[in-house]
Amino acid sequence: MTVDPDSARLVVSCPDRPGIVAAVAGFLFDTGANVTHSDQHSSDPEGGRFFLRMEFHLPGVAERLDELRTAFDDEVAAEFDMAWRIVSATAPKRMAILVSKYDHCLLDLLWRARRGELPCEVPVVISNHPDLRTDVENFGVPFFCVPVEQGGKPAAEAQMLALLRGHADVVVLARYMQILTGGFLDELGIPVINIHHSFLPAFAGANPYGRARERGVKIVGATAHYVTEELDAGPIIEQDIVRVSHRHDVDTLERLGADVERTVLARAVQLHLDDRVLVDGGTTVVF
Amino acid sequence: MTVDPDSARLVVSCPDRPGIVAAVAGFLFDTGANVTHSDQHSSDPEGGRFFLRMEFHLPGVAERLDELRTAFDDEVAAEFDMAWRIVSATAPKRMAILVSKYDHCLLDLLWRARRGELPCEVPVVISNHPDLRTDVENFGVPFFCVPVEQGGKPAAEAQMLALLRGHADVVVLARYMQILTGGFLDELGIPVINIHHSFLPAFAGANPYGRARERGVKIVGATAHYVTEELDAGPIIEQDIVRVSHRHDVDTLERLGADVERTVLARAVQLHLDDRVLVDGGTTVVF
Amino acid sequence: MTVDPDSARLVVSCPDRPGIVAAVAGFLFDTGANVTHSDQHSSDPEGGRFFLRMEFHLPGVAERLDELRTAFDDEVAAEFDMAWRIVSATAPKRMAILVSKYDHCLLDLLWRARRGELPCEVPVVISNHPDLRTDVENFGVPFFCVPVEQGGKPAAEAQMLALLRGHADVVVLARYMQILTGGFLDELGIPVINIHHSFLPAFAGANPYGRARERGVKIVGATAHYVTEELDAGPIIEQDIVRVSHRHDVDTLERLGADVERTVLARAVQLHLDDRVLVDGGTTVVF
Amino acid sequence: MTVDPDSARLVVSCPDRPGIVAAVAGFLFDTGANVTHSDQHSSDPEGGRFFLRMEFHLPGVAERLDELRTAFDDEVAAEFDMAWRIVSATAPKRMAILVSKYDHCLLDLLWRARRGELPCEVPVVISNHPDLRTDVENFGVPFFCVPVEQGGKPAAEAQMLALLRGHADVVVLARYMQILTGGFLDELGIPVINIHHSFLPAFAGANPYGRARERGVKIVGATAHYVTEELDAGPIIEQDIVRVSHRHDVDTLERLGADVERTVLARAVQLHLDDRVLVDGGTTVVF
Repeated sequence: MTVDPDSARLVVSCPDRPGIVAAVAGFLFDTGANVTHSDQHSSDPEGGRFFLRMEFHLPGVAERLDELRTAFDDEVAAEFDMAWRIVSATAPKRMAILVSKYDHCLLDLLWRARRGELPCEVPVVISNHPDLRTDVENFGVPFFCVPVEQGGKPAAEAQMLALLRGHADVVVLARYMQILTGGFLDELGIPVINIHHSFLPAFAGANPYGRARERGVKIVGATAHYVTEELDAGPIIEQDIVRVSHRHDVDTLERLGADVERTVLARAVQLHLDDRVLVDGGTTVVF
Repeated sequence: MTVDPDSARLVVSCPDRPGIVAAVAGFLFDTGANVTHSDQHSSDPEGGRFFLRMEFHLPGVAERLDELRTAFDDEVAAEFDMAWRIVSATAPKRMAILVSKYDHCLLDLLWRARRGELPCEVPVVISNHPDLRTDVENFGVPFFCVPVEQGGKPAAEAQMLALLRGHADVVVLARYMQILTGGFLDELGIPVINIHHSFLPAFAGANPYGRARERGVKIVGATAHYVTEELDAGPIIEQDIVRVSHRHDVDTLERLGADVERTVLARAVQLHLDDRVLVDGGTTVVF
Repeated sequence: MTVDPDSARLVVSCPDRPGIVAAVAGFLFDTGANVTHSDQHSSDPEGGRFFLRMEFHLPGVAERLDELRTAFDDEVAAEFDMAWRIVSATAPKRMAILVSKYDHCLLDLLWRARRGELPCEVPVVISNHPDLRTDVENFGVPFFCVPVEQGGKPAAEAQMLALLRGHADVVVLARYMQILTGGFLDELGIPVINIHHSFLPAFAGANPYGRARERGVKIVGATAHYVTEELDAGPIIEQDIVRVSHRHDVDTLERLGADVERTVLARAVQLHLDDRVLVDGGTTVVF
Repeated sequence: MTVDPDSARLVVSCPDRPGIVAAVAGFLFDTGANVTHSDQHSSDPEGGRFFLRMEFHLPGVAERLDELRTAFDDEVAAEFDMAWRIVSATAPKRMAILVSKYDHCLLDLLWRARRGELPCEVPVVISNHPDLRTDVENFGVPFFCVPVEQGGKPAAEAQMLALLRGHADVVVLARYMQILTGGFLDELGIPVINIHHSFLPAFAGANPYGRARERGVKIVGATAHYVTEELDAGPIIEQDIVRVSHRHDVDTLERLGADVERTVLARAVQLHLDDRVLVDGGTTVVF
């Protein structure tokens, strides 16, 4: 996919009130931009929160970002108490990946990144196991093994922070089987996306496929969500499912589920990289 | 759909061991039957449970059912410790319906029954509200209103038992909003199918759409299951889902969910009426 | 679903060029309206066509529609060469239904209209067969039988025009098995929506389920589209599918397909009634 | 997935008549086998064709295959005019892959084979372009580039025949963009599976995504089928779809479609490797 080099995105959230769209659209028109796509949502027309994402075309936008940002802050954002960002559509984000032993989500992400399907660079893959080193290095991506010994989580998290801070814009847990501490998440300070191998909130926690089999569900799923300190409870970005039956033992559920996991994670990552996911408390607005 | 009048079904479950299929198939062949469809499942080849459903064609089978049953019991079932039944494919089951105020599941079932799509008769519809009387009577089906007053559940259940016992082979709860007691279920003594308006085990209990909205899930669903004394925990027959987003308020979730509810319930009822659902502890085998 | 009585919709299409969103949003802001939802699409940023649908909240909008329309035409629409309309969200459209003998799409639409799920009135149902009279009249809807005799299509179409012109805003063919002439469509002058029982463009024309069975497809579908003079070729509004297998004979495909047909048609009708479908040549933009 | 080493499969098709299941089940019981799974289908109880697949557990079956085959041929197959095969469940098939430049289907198959998810060995990958050599060799799989020059198809096909004959049990076209001649298919003499990038029979032939965009369909799909001399007309094994909209240009349709293509192809290959696909004229029975 070729991306228009003069394309950029404005993402806004603020308290809802009349005049926001007119103010933003007027600002962009005055700068000479053409709005090519727009999505908006209001959580409640009375006293709710307003969310907006606009794609616009503006010749030479990549060189004019700083100027645009200063002007938008002065002329629009302050008045409406906006959280906002303006980003070039052509600047790839840096996506670090954490993984344990399962390779299906990792390989899918690396392959999509190489193909240019995911607009990102992968500066580093970190694993608590050495197994996937060759696969990662075959993609030309640096691989670091950071084992998590009994009692050694603080040391491991410190080592990972050193590898990640300043080198990544987003971290993806591609079946990384260690729990990250709230302290680590705070210090990291960038979004972390996890793939959980169940249709949350069903079967949160360990061994979801085994528990799905025992409960006799006819559908299993996967959930991609932003990571918060509370396990498996962060804002959901994307979910999908696959039909199963009495024929499927736990091994088969895992295999069928793996296909859903990698698809759901890839979709969530794509949405995040395209600045389409806005967090609204414990939920998300996905444009 | 025209059903072959000489078609019947044999449904079997028993401890798994070698020779079951040969014994059953040999028996049917010796009676002159042609097996037209067969499904089997073993929960575990070593010490598991064996499940079998065979459709067969046998001229004049409707008149020979008693003879067949006696012979099967003597020659096959006893040796393998089988739970089994042989039923004609042309004998419609009697399906009673319980409903409260929502009409979508009720009307869908009545319409499918009238159309001949569901192989059943509907001897009675019982509701704890009077609202749906005209709709039901337009289908030529008797309607009884059995309100459940504060403290009056025993009386209401007794009244329903009098209407149902001996007059129905299965009871369907088509959004019936009262909890049935274990005593009622025991005395009733026939299968009861419920539709729950969530993707169980997520959001068991009340107000699932509201809770789904709060949790920010991207998919909602519905679950049809056999009713047991434990609320929303009986063996699942069928489930399905629909994608939702931040755009959908609780009212819209209910409307979208209603379409899934009636579809899932109709499918579960059809499977049950076709003798395709075999209970295996807390789960089901669906052929 | 309760609809905000002060809610309205603006739908626009025009040649794309910079400034459209700013002009429209500025106009609405100046009238005192708050934009609560907005969708836009450009078929091509360079020389393409621009499509916009905005929902807005404006106190007393129902009484101010004429004034608004005049102002919008003068101040915005003329400059950008817009095709546009402004409609109140609370004014139900009048939806006439044509049907032959199959009842599934018809009853589904009548249920949904009665339930308030489809924002419409049904002024009339017309059929070329008498069979469905009682069903329709049970909903309190007038039913007219207009048979189409050999050679009698002109007379039948004239009779239908008399029943429809001025009494309907949209006509839905709910499995109406007669081909409507181009002349009839022209004289009728309002949108006509048809449900075709295949996944177009596969199996256009007659007997799609039989042909699907012969070809051995693993999925069958249904397609709702606007009717044009060319059979089964009009702009597609909505499609959906259901998985099938070698187990399913043609009768079963028809039964499974019927569920998809009524769902797809109901969704297409809902989208149309909500002013979410904009025609773009031979295709549609669906917001 | 661990496979029971004493597990084998019997696959049968023959003219339907009474007694087939009894004869087959009796034969297996007499050899000491336990039938662990069984599927059967009759295309028509009167004068149709009968299809059967049984999985059975028999200690030491791998060493007894020849003996079993001889006995089955004598005692059962001859009488019923059966086409049949008995295969060990643990003997991996040899799957050769042909590919052009797109890597998504190829890599997906190689990952799944390496993971043990597809029960096969990959003896060779052949491409008419050199681009994918490194990727293939990273999996330890031999790669041959066999370009197809103008007028050079006979030479290319001869070269491919030399690489494939006797070295493969099935050939998979993982987006191989050359048409194979009927002569090549005849001489090859083993099944060939192709993935077509549309929901056949819609958009057979070239450029399906472009044509889907023009027609304005709301769903695109992919189709895996056995290759016959007639282009895109062989028996369909598996299909699936993805929803699309006016938002998606042709590049995006291709990207979304690629995910469906690799999933559908992997499923079809898995079904074939598990001996679950039986050809019935121009269609398939998939157990």
